[in-house]
This record gives sequence, C-alpha cells and structure tokens, in this order.
Amino acid sequence: MGIGIDLGGTAIKGGIVSDDGKIIQTLEYATIPESGYENILLTISRMINELRERSESVSEVGIGIPGVIDAHSQMILSCPNLGWKNKNFKSDLENKLSVKVNLINDATAAAMGEYAYGSGLGASSMIMLTLGTGIGGGIILNDQIISGTHGVASEIGHMIVGENFYDCACGKNGCLETFSSVTALKKYIDQQLQNGIPSNLAQYDMINGAIIFDEARNNDQLALEALDRMCRYLGLAISNLNDILDPDIFVIGGGLSAAGEFLLNKLIGSLQRFLTYKDLAQPQLVLASLGNDAGLIGAACLKNYH
Amino acid sequence: MGIGIDLGGTAIKGGIVSDDGKIIQTLEYATIPESGYENILLTISRMINELRERSESVSEVGIGIPGVIDAHSQMILSCPNLGWKNKNFKSDLENKLSVKVNLINDATAAAMGEYAYGSGLGASSMIMLTLGTGIGGGIILNDQIISGTHGVASEIGHMIVGENFYDCACGKNGCLETFSSVTALKKYIDQQLQNGIPSNLAQYDMINGAIIFDEARNNDQLALEALDRMCRYLGLAISNLNDILDPDIFVIGGGLSAAGEFLLNKLIGSLQRFLTYKDLAQPQLVLASLGNDAGLIGAACLKNYH
Repeated sequence: MGIGIDLGGTAIKGGIVSDDGKIIQTLEYATIPESGYENILLTISRMINELRERSESVSEVGIGIPGVIDAHSQMILSCPNLGWKNKNFKSDLENKLSVKVNLINDATAAAMGEYAYGSGLGASSMIMLTLGTGIGGGIILNDQIISGTHGVASEIGHMIVGENFYDCACGKNGCLETFSSVTALKKYIDQQLQNGIPSNLAQYDMINGAIIFDEARNNDQLALEALDRMCRYLGLAISNLNDILDPDIFVIGGGLSAAGEFLLNKLIGSLQRFLTYKDLAQPQLVLASLGNDAGLIGAACLKNYH
Repeated sequence: MGIGIDLGGTAIKGGIVSDDGKIIQTLEYATIPESGYENILLTISRMINELRERSESVSEVGIGIPGVIDAHSQMILSCPNLGWKNKNFKSDLENKLSVKVNLINDATAAAMGEYAYGSGLGASSMIMLTLGTGIGGGIILNDQIISGTHGVASEIGHMIVGENFYDCACGKNGCLETFSSVTALKKYIDQQLQNGIPSNLAQYDMINGAIIFDEARNNDQLALEALDRMCRYLGLAISNLNDILDPDIFVIGGGLSAAGEFLLNKLIGSLQRFLTYKDLAQPQLVLASLGNDAGLIGAACLKNYH
C-alpha cells in the first residue's frame, strides 16, 4: 500500500494505492498557483495527513511534479506552471510531516505507473510518451528510472526532429512537441485554415484532439493531413529513440491516446518508414492503459524503486 | 589483467590489458573477410591462445564486433563488413578454447574503454560518439552498458536530425552520420566543388578529415563551412541525447577527434545553440583520450561489467 500525489497545474490529486496497483481512495483539491508556495505546501501536507488517516501505516509518499527535480538534492529547480524555482519542497514537506517524501517528474511518474501496473507490465525497459498540451516522456531502462545527472532526462518533447513554422516555448525550433502535441495540431490546423484550406474544422470555435480525430474519422482531409503530419514526426522520434535505447516497449499515453487504435495504426505505419533495423528490431508500440491515474499510481509505487 | 580483441574490417587486434587499463602486449593480424567465417574464427582462436600463453591465467576474453549482437543469445545477428549473418561466434569460439567469450559492439567497446580508463573516468553515465567513416555510439547509464532489447541500442549515427541531399546506406534520409562523419564531410565538399565553389580543397585528388581541418585552420571558406555544417548537426544530436538521457559526460572519439580543440570548440559552440535547459543542465563535452586502443581496452575490461 502506498500514497501517491499528482501535483498538476489545475488540480492536486492524491490517492491510496494498493500493492497490486489499484487506487483505493482518492482526494482532489484545486491547485491555485497564485496562492503561493506556502499555501500549496500546506494543502499537500493536509492531503497527505488525511490519506494517512485512512490508510495503513505508510512511511513514504511519492509526489509527481510538473517540473525539473535535481537528481541529487531532490530540490525542485524549475516548475513553470506553478512559478516555482529552486524550492526545497521535499524537506519543507518532510518538516511538516513524519513521512519520507520522494519527488519524481510527473511524466516519469506516469511512465512508472504504466511500467509497474499498466501497459509496460513485464518489461524491464520502457519508454513512455505522453501526448497532451506538450509532450512528456518517461524512460525506464534495466528496471531503473532514468532521471539524468541534472534531472532533465526524458525530455522527449524537446528532441529536435525537423524545422517548423513556429518556435517551441523553450526557444528552440523543431522540437517534437511543436509537431505532435495537441497544441501543435491546433496551430497547424489554424495555419492551414487561414491559408484557405477547406475543412469541417472551420466550423468550430475551439478545436481539441477529440474533434480533430472525429473529423479525421469522417474523412475530413485537413484533419487527416494534420494527424498524418503529427504521426510522421512521432514515428521519426520513436525510431530515433529506438536507435538510441532499443527498449522492450514504447507506451503512448496522454489525452491524444484516447484516439485509440486509429492513432496507434497511423503511428505504427509511420514508425515502419523510419526504423533502421526492420528485420532485427521491431519495437513494441502500445497504448497506455491507466489513463489519468498513471501518474498517481506511479508516484505511489516509487518507494519500491529506489 | 584481461584479454581484449578488436575485430575490425581490415585488422584483428588483440591485447593483454593490465588491471589499470594499460595495454601490456599486442598482436595484430589482417582481417581477410573473403577467407570466410571459419578462417577468421581460427585466426582469433589462435590469437587468444597466443595471448594467453603470454599472460597470467585469464578465464574470460572480450571481443568487440563491428555489428549487431543479440542481447540474450549473444549471437551475431549482422556484421556487414565481414558479410556475417546469424553467426554463433561466441559458442563456436568457446568450443575451440577453454575460456568464456564475451561479445560487445565495437563502438560500445570503445565507450567502455573510455568510461573505465579514459575521458569518462569517474562518470557513472556517459555517451560516446565515434566520428569516423560512419558514426558509432556507446551508452553507459548508471554504470551499466546499454545494448538494448535486440542489441541495436546506441546506434546514434542513425538518429534522424534533418533532411540531406543524399540517403544513408541504411536506406533512411537525414541520419546523423550523413551530416557529421568523414564520409559526410567528403560528400558535402564534393558537391560544393562540383557546384563551382572555390576552395583549396579542389587541388587534392583525395581529401580526408586531416586535410579538411588543415584547410579550415588556413581559413579556407569551404572547409570552414563544411565543418560548421558538420558541427551544427552534431550539436543538435548531442542536445537531443542530452534531453533524452542527461548523462554526466559526452566523449567525442574516432578519427575526426584528432582535430582536437579546434573541433571541440566548434562543437561546444554549436551545442549551446541547441541546449534546452541552458541554466539547469550544461553537459560536459570532452575528447576521447585512448585513441584507437579504446575498443581493445574496453573489450578486455568487459569481464568486470556483467
């Protein structure tokens, strides 16, 4: 049994997770970044106390953080959504509680969840790509989490895979997440609509991943082309990762993965184009199975992997 | 003390390596791929016997192979330079000798050598890029060699980093080694000379890496531009690897690394352009220090890392 917390930009989710990876109880509070560091710290410590009252004795808590955590000191170096820099969150929280706190990058937490109880079950090396507003990554090799020397490993969304018509928020041009995230799809479709390309997508005030996939299934040419472009670069990126790490399995998660087999088939087709050793090393490519719970479950089981 | 063999396309080098990584004795035979698998097997078994007679008792031998080795069976799946496919080289050799044979990809062997006794000494995670006719790679993370599920990990030369005017021998377009190897430099310079770009390089019947670097030091514009292009893509690739794995150190080896600080400074400049987290994660980037011996030394010390 473990306690996991998923600290997001809009909500803080906490849960008690059984030893076989099932969420037994959950709590959810709103994240109010403007309330400041101390208030969020207090909210989380209250949440942990509440969860501990409802669970058997737990001596460690895992927390997924949407930012960069220093590999050695566990200091939060940067957490843009919350406006945090160089926060000693782990010890600040431990000072309020009598438990050990383990921090993990949120995308890595999701990978950890899928590896321990989801689509990666049985694999010893796994790469997860989380397709959402941006693209997050989590890497587990030889049953070890790869966080990197400075805590910035598995930033798969910033792999440069081509040249793009707009720059990434990180300042570079050509990052994977400017081609294959929800934001990337929207920007590309907006640009094409402005260029006068006809499409059913023009009728929506706001488009999202689900609408784009629906219109693609209805054979809307722009929706299909946007998804092909997205999958082209994602296939290229997965092939690059395969050339570098050759893991047992790739797991595709995040909001866009809700498109299911329709996405997966496009992606498998694209990956085949780019694979270097087609006859020697066909990577497994599957959809994530834990949905939004992956991060919480991964954070809760972190205690077993350090 | 260990015995290492470096099986190359033109020569088979063998050596006795001391426990502090010094080569004490060496032997070198020509590789004659046309002589066939059995003859090369015999040559290597003879070499190992000869080295064993000259060394203290050694129960394991490491051999660097220019090809893909199955991670589980240690079968040589593919070794293009020697025309080998699916060879049970390890057991064929063990049947002729009373030693255990460990196989390792040659670029990974070089990385192992630099990690254990060269520029990577003290690091626990290291990525080596070997810049030669092609580009080889070796990855060590958390003090473990990363060979991959199918034995094709660390194929850094086949990471797609852009679009190029010619295809890679692997069939893909845009592989790093078509931008940043000796072959890539030569092809680009040939193309530019044919386009009528003036350059001192036009006077040579055959150019090589040393000539290109010499002419660049003499301020030849085409030589400089070719090296800038090479370093641009190499910097991009190293930044991608840093985003993915964030290792302690990157080590640059292979023939082109003989250009020393001149290359390193260009490369550091290029890398800065592409780094995602400039203030959080400045990777170390250094030249290899063991030269052509790295592979042999790495193969010899393989026995300590499995």
